[in-house]
Amino acid sequence: MWGGRFAEKPAAAMQAINASIDVDQRLWREDIEGSKAHAAMLAAQGIITAEDNAAIQAGLDQIAAEIAQGTFQFSTELEDIHLNIEARLTERIGEAGKRLHTGRSRNDQVATDFKLWTMRAARDAGDWLRALQKALVKRADQHADWIMPGFTHLQTAQPITLGHHLLAYTQMFERDRVRIVGAMLEAAWECPLGAAALAGTAYPIEREATAAALGFHAPAPNSLDAVGSRDFALAALANLSICATHLSRLAEEIVLWTSPQFGFARLSDTWSTGSSIMPQKRNPDAAELIRAKAARIGGAFATLNAIVQKLPLAYAKDLQEDKALTFDAFDSFELCVVAMTGMIETLAFNREAMRAAAARGYSTATDLADWLVRELKVPFREAHEITGKIVRRAEDAGVAELAHLALADYQAVDPRITEAARALLTVEKSVESRTSYGGTAPERVREQIARWKETFE
Amino acid sequence: MWGGRFAEKPAAAMQAINASIDVDQRLWREDIEGSKAHAAMLAAQGIITAEDNAAIQAGLDQIAAEIAQGTFQFSTELEDIHLNIEARLTERIGEAGKRLHTGRSRNDQVATDFKLWTMRAARDAGDWLRALQKALVKRADQHADWIMPGFTHLQTAQPITLGHHLLAYTQMFERDRVRIVGAMLEAAWECPLGAAALAGTAYPIEREATAAALGFHAPAPNSLDAVGSRDFALAALANLSICATHLSRLAEEIVLWTSPQFGFARLSDTWSTGSSIMPQKRNPDAAELIRAKAARIGGAFATLNAIVQKLPLAYAKDLQEDKALTFDAFDSFELCVVAMTGMIETLAFNREAMRAAAARGYSTATDLADWLVRELKVPFREAHEITGKIVRRAEDAGVAELAHLALADYQAVDPRITEAARALLTVEKSVESRTSYGGTAPERVREQIARWKETFE
Amino acid sequence: MWGGRFAEKPAAAMQAINASIDVDQRLWREDIEGSKAHAAMLAAQGIITAEDNAAIQAGLDQIAAEIAQGTFQFSTELEDIHLNIEARLTERIGEAGKRLHTGRSRNDQVATDFKLWTMRAARDAGDWLRALQKALVKRADQHADWIMPGFTHLQTAQPITLGHHLLAYTQMFERDRVRIVGAMLEAAWECPLGAAALAGTAYPIEREATAAALGFHAPAPNSLDAVGSRDFALAALANLSICATHLSRLAEEIVLWTSPQFGFARLSDTWSTGSSIMPQKRNPDAAELIRAKAARIGGAFATLNAIVQKLPLAYAKDLQEDKALTFDAFDSFELCVVAMTGMIETLAFNREAMRAAAARGYSTATDLADWLVRELKVPFREAHEITGKIVRRAEDAGVAELAHLALADYQAVDPRITEAARALLTVEKSVESRTSYGGTAPERVREQIARWKETFE
Amino acid sequence: MWGGRFAEKPAAAMQAINASIDVDQRLWREDIEGSKAHAAMLAAQGIITAEDNAAIQAGLDQIAAEIAQGTFQFSTELEDIHLNIEARLTERIGEAGKRLHTGRSRNDQVATDFKLWTMRAARDAGDWLRALQKALVKRADQHADWIMPGFTHLQTAQPITLGHHLLAYTQMFERDRVRIVGAMLEAAWECPLGAAALAGTAYPIEREATAAALGFHAPAPNSLDAVGSRDFALAALANLSICATHLSRLAEEIVLWTSPQFGFARLSDTWSTGSSIMPQKRNPDAAELIRAKAARIGGAFATLNAIVQKLPLAYAKDLQEDKALTFDAFDSFELCVVAMTGMIETLAFNREAMRAAAARGYSTATDLADWLVRELKVPFREAHEITGKIVRRAEDAGVAELAHLALADYQAVDPRITEAARALLTVEKSVESRTSYGGTAPERVREQIARWKETFE
Repeated sequence: MWGGRFAEKPAAAMQAINASIDVDQRLWREDIEGSKAHAAMLAAQGIITAEDNAAIQAGLDQIAAEIAQGTFQFSTELEDIHLNIEARLTERIGEAGKRLHTGRSRNDQVATDFKLWTMRAARDAGDWLRALQKALVKRADQHADWIMPGFTHLQTAQPITLGHHLLAYTQMFERDRVRIVGAMLEAAWECPLGAAALAGTAYPIEREATAAALGFHAPAPNSLDAVGSRDFALAALANLSICATHLSRLAEEIVLWTSPQFGFARLSDTWSTGSSIMPQKRNPDAAELIRAKAARIGGAFATLNAIVQKLPLAYAKDLQEDKALTFDAFDSFELCVVAMTGMIETLAFNREAMRAAAARGYSTATDLADWLVRELKVPFREAHEITGKIVRRAEDAGVAELAHLALADYQAVDPRITEAARALLTVEKSVESRTSYGGTAPERVREQIARWKETFE
Repeated sequence: MWGGRFAEKPAAAMQAINASIDVDQRLWREDIEGSKAHAAMLAAQGIITAEDNAAIQAGLDQIAAEIAQGTFQFSTELEDIHLNIEARLTERIGEAGKRLHTGRSRNDQVATDFKLWTMRAARDAGDWLRALQKALVKRADQHADWIMPGFTHLQTAQPITLGHHLLAYTQMFERDRVRIVGAMLEAAWECPLGAAALAGTAYPIEREATAAALGFHAPAPNSLDAVGSRDFALAALANLSICATHLSRLAEEIVLWTSPQFGFARLSDTWSTGSSIMPQKRNPDAAELIRAKAARIGGAFATLNAIVQKLPLAYAKDLQEDKALTFDAFDSFELCVVAMTGMIETLAFNREAMRAAAARGYSTATDLADWLVRELKVPFREAHEITGKIVRRAEDAGVAELAHLALADYQAVDPRITEAARALLTVEKSVESRTSYGGTAPERVREQIARWKETFE
Repeated sequence: MWGGRFAEKPAAAMQAINASIDVDQRLWREDIEGSKAHAAMLAAQGIITAEDNAAIQAGLDQIAAEIAQGTFQFSTELEDIHLNIEARLTERIGEAGKRLHTGRSRNDQVATDFKLWTMRAARDAGDWLRALQKALVKRADQHADWIMPGFTHLQTAQPITLGHHLLAYTQMFERDRVRIVGAMLEAAWECPLGAAALAGTAYPIEREATAAALGFHAPAPNSLDAVGSRDFALAALANLSICATHLSRLAEEIVLWTSPQFGFARLSDTWSTGSSIMPQKRNPDAAELIRAKAARIGGAFATLNAIVQKLPLAYAKDLQEDKALTFDAFDSFELCVVAMTGMIETLAFNREAMRAAAARGYSTATDLADWLVRELKVPFREAHEITGKIVRRAEDAGVAELAHLALADYQAVDPRITEAARALLTVEKSVESRTSYGGTAPERVREQIARWKETFE
Repeated sequence: MWGGRFAEKPAAAMQAINASIDVDQRLWREDIEGSKAHAAMLAAQGIITAEDNAAIQAGLDQIAAEIAQGTFQFSTELEDIHLNIEARLTERIGEAGKRLHTGRSRNDQVATDFKLWTMRAARDAGDWLRALQKALVKRADQHADWIMPGFTHLQTAQPITLGHHLLAYTQMFERDRVRIVGAMLEAAWECPLGAAALAGTAYPIEREATAAALGFHAPAPNSLDAVGSRDFALAALANLSICATHLSRLAEEIVLWTSPQFGFARLSDTWSTGSSIMPQKRNPDAAELIRAKAARIGGAFATLNAIVQKLPLAYAKDLQEDKALTFDAFDSFELCVVAMTGMIETLAFNREAMRAAAARGYSTATDLADWLVRELKVPFREAHEITGKIVRRAEDAGVAELAHLALADYQAVDPRITEAARALLTVEKSVESRTSYGGTAPERVREQIARWKETFE
């Protein structure tokens, strides 16, 4: 009836849409840990015997070794990682294996495994970000007072320092890191194990024990919620996605900075691709792929959110897609952070090109306006008008930097302007002057660098 | 510096983010066809010799055989399918292989391959949908006059026929099919081959020839657009996504219909999953996964759209993500359509349950109102008020169906109501009466079925 | 040249795309507070005089009164709320008004206003959720032991209690509340004011003072980041979106429960819409709109994320769309939570319908399996098989509930099964038995209710 | 119980979430046209009298006049545009007004109105795009042979012409236009009117007549589908979204081109915003907002798709959100196209800056490789290696353009290279040489311009 891969094989198509072992085998570590904790608790509560528990513990350890060594045979007919491991356990240890599933079900088992995986992945993601922050601060330290243009609307606005620019991202990644680690802590709050299919169980299980053994704060207080909710994954994906957006912004800057029009920086060989015909060419492929992956991670959140959006309680098979999306998002995220760290560590900046760009466009005009306000008590809005006239004069005179315009020209617009004022209008003086907290002055930047270094210790 | 899979291996991370061979090897057929057409044209134009062309044609045929047989060794170092095949060609036929890339570049090559793949996938998708439509029409034919409740807001509104309900989806899938085939035709319109890197080429190539050989309508008239645009893929994903939304609606209905509360239908063994403990249970896993996959396909469109959204011309590496997203969307789509076809073919409907549900809730109230308008010339809005009073009376009397209320009760509200009017208020009479074009009357439904059968011939 | 609303009026089109006053006038309170704090700090630092500050404070208070009374004239030509207020201030108080903008710019001003607004909106959102939780707990208390079916795949799985079901959502909304309040605290962490255009300022401003006055924890330590980042809004939208997904799940359940097929509950007049012709009809419009609004809120996150995704530092006009999206999301969210609270408070549940549905489908089969494991030490997987045979027997016998099957039938499958076992298989016994922590047993549910009541105090 | 705007006013909250008149009053023209066509048909079929019809026609014309003049009083209590108009009609013409709703319901009425609106909006959108294409072709004509860099990865790849670059977008907008007009034609295919609530009607209505009168191709053949489907709106939004992505790409280029680093173009006063302090500054606000609006339009598709995704048939209130999303998307789209047309018409290009950028980066290296292949029959891949050595030599020598390198240097790498070869390596010769169909050579570009001009006639 239908063509394609499943012609005349409805069962094959059903298996293809239904099986999850290709994806969820990645949960094997968590599945085994969860089962070990569960068995130990069952024995402690007298629900299974100490002998059964010993056999289960040993059997699961052997299975872990088999999987780690790649000798375990995964079976699609057994659908998922949980049944694959349990079937193998029973094959190895017999009766005792059949007692493991007492007081739990696949619903709480998969929720527990997936939460454990997400907790670890989020913790790792925090570590990757920390490494990126260290790379950024190291480069900020090297270039704390290198001058570059600060842009608004991609138009030159005011001179800033490269160190300051790199620290802006360090700051963003700190909030991202806190959010991602927060998602980890949140996932770690409530342990689903023992919620059973959805209603809890009549066995005298001790959920505090398994929760603690697996590193959770407490057992989840509502069994329906425990098996049917995925907001821990949604929160993790949202936080990854926001961070990926920041990575994408920095990637965009790297693409711009390394373009011949900007020429602010040059990618290392390792982190660029070349052309056999144009050996000087360095394509920022990794930066471009980071932008694309950021969209992909955002797509994972949107997709999982749409999946959960109209599901009645408790478990529905729709939720099976949660793992493929989450695994892919964390994999993409790792690639992005690692590639960004590599690029940042090895980017060669061009001091002259950046300085020249910073001076263009009369970028120190606000410094003159500020002088008028500060020294002559001209109201702010009037100071702007006077400065505007001077900029227009510089433009007419074909002068590239405001600091190069003759004093006479300044005084033709406003005779109160002094040589001292004019002397402030170099890009160096401009950045030095912006000493407000959080400002671009090298001394402020170095304070922030020192603060970061302390944080990293 | 960083942890995880790429510790101390920047080059490995760069390769991991950059290589696409795992994904794009799926383009091997299209890549070989494109190269064969290109070589033949080069020879016809005297750009390469007939001998070179012969060697290239034979060499590519052999490579196709190797790949089909699974003996081809794909190399990640060679990045993508294009370089893998070209390297192998040169390995096999020497110098001539190096002449193949004359007058083209990887940019137009990948655009051509990907367009060809999308054209075929869209054509296949149209076929899968046709098979689903046939299944729907067959079931509609079997159940043209089975009565079920027509819902608005999931509240019983009016009785309808099951045939009519199944044809509603047939109609949606027809628009979807036309859109998807339209996306195929659109992709087939302009052939990128010969656009070269982005500017065209100085070789006297004949792009009409390669376009025609590959089944395109014409060569793309702008080389920048040819290599840098992906709207053909976006259009295909959007159209798949809209169709997946329709599949998801039908899947939702299957979940509802097969729930014990509705009990309208029972899934076959093949298309449901069971429970060892509750053998009567049939979980609609396939239907639930169709809902989830619909969200996934929608996510693919959103992601690719976000990727392309701010890219300057022409090619950027961000576009490499296009294939993973598109392949996944078509794979998911195939699974959904095949699974839906299987479910529809084998769903067992419960006539009694549906008929009983249709009668509940005084679903024929509008039929009475219509009689008042038609026979007594009562204005429509007033007829509604009279009917409302009668329904309230039926509710107070605890009568399940309006047709069961005594004539005296009707006449207590409006003495003009006759036995003939009352007799119209069964669900059978109700559906029979809705004979307007497109209406639910079995005769109208059978006309539509006949029209569909003609269309399928 | 172009048709439509802007024919021959390019300036009008530019104004239409550029002006934001229609949207951002909603920030007036925050703008005035920010300006007052800024002026007070400027005076304290000696940057403006005490007289100027007094004039500014009084002027801004008067403007606040004008806006609150609706007498303020907003002007599209003045583009946004910031310029509208500043222009009016100067109109009222002259020179002093022109000094207000010293040491700040529109970039840090808008970031500060928008952060303040988001902080308050998030705090309010937390309050709305708390009210919803109280409504849920109150209803859970009233129905702690009412029995309903617990679903997986929308198939009856095991009996649960309505109290337990309502508490599942209380639990979700608690995590949501914590996340949303967390987003508020996060926004409150760093105050952008004084970051100026992007580089900080040379005025001796005291950013600690303004940050504290406005309720922030500290001034933002990087001025580029302060004016160019919107992750606080993204985090708020993501958290709203996850919560909206939970609201949408509950809304879906209300649509199902109030459908005639389920009949578990009836909406109040206030929270449903009717039909003049079918007075018994209660359409769950509010629940349906909550589902739609959840999608809308998710769309706001996706849109803002896509907007920011490839923006180089620092400010770009793209960011202007942030406010329309965020305001709309919070408005939609408020409507959803308020409507949900109203529906929950007034929903009338049908105890008989829920109990009957819970008993259908041999929903206590796992209780029998558990008895076999617990009392006879049958391994779990074997207990499942025995139970399966008994369920099949019940099905063949046409018995509706497992508890109604004769003991002889049980013993025909396994002679060890006793009357005591059979007596456990009513839905009442089933829910009573599930006493594990977080389980559905009424005693457990009441413990959770008590815990919530304490929390609310 | 709850705070915020709806404290103690549940009814107000219900009205706020439920009413749509603020949004759907925009459908007034379509609603009146639909009602007029329906009434005329009812009279022609003898369902209402000629007198009633005359009264209805006159009454509706008067209401149209009232709305057009702004004197119509819209009422939130009457919920939507349909009830507002019908109530006013009955107020004006009495009994006859109550007969208008015969044989239709609000469900088919709203579907018809919304389809009509979408058809017109899509047709207008096609016109706006045509105007933009004309502006692009006009500018391409003026700059057919101006040389600029062709980028891949934002790195200089090969010289191209500005005319060619502008035509690339003309080509994209043509596909977009065809898609958008296609969505219009698709919406126009099937008229929902007469589908009634969902089941059709028993009145002898003539749906062909109303379909034809309203400009539809035919009546919709399935009444459930007619009232419950919104794929016409999804298709329109998807097509707008893809086009908006193209607009966003061009907007991104305008932001780059007008940045001081590129300096390729300067925005007119009308289409940029300035700074009082830096009069030379021209912020590309409109271009940035186009990028943001593109994300917004993409968000509209994703949101509506998610709304429809799991809805059972037929109508559900969730669908009410369709109009707000669609209206907003078309409004945003109009702003984008109009603003883009205005920017394109008035952009001042800088020939020298573009030419200089095109020459940088040895952008004619492939021209040398091509000469080696063509004239010396060197295999393509070897020609690349030779060229690579020469480029490295030019780099070492500090020569800016390949054409400036001494012949001796060429011959040092390969003695076969002649002065004639060297002479081909200017950017002018390079673009002139790319004469393949669709290539960047000015003669090819002018051919395409001529083709477009014919198309526009």
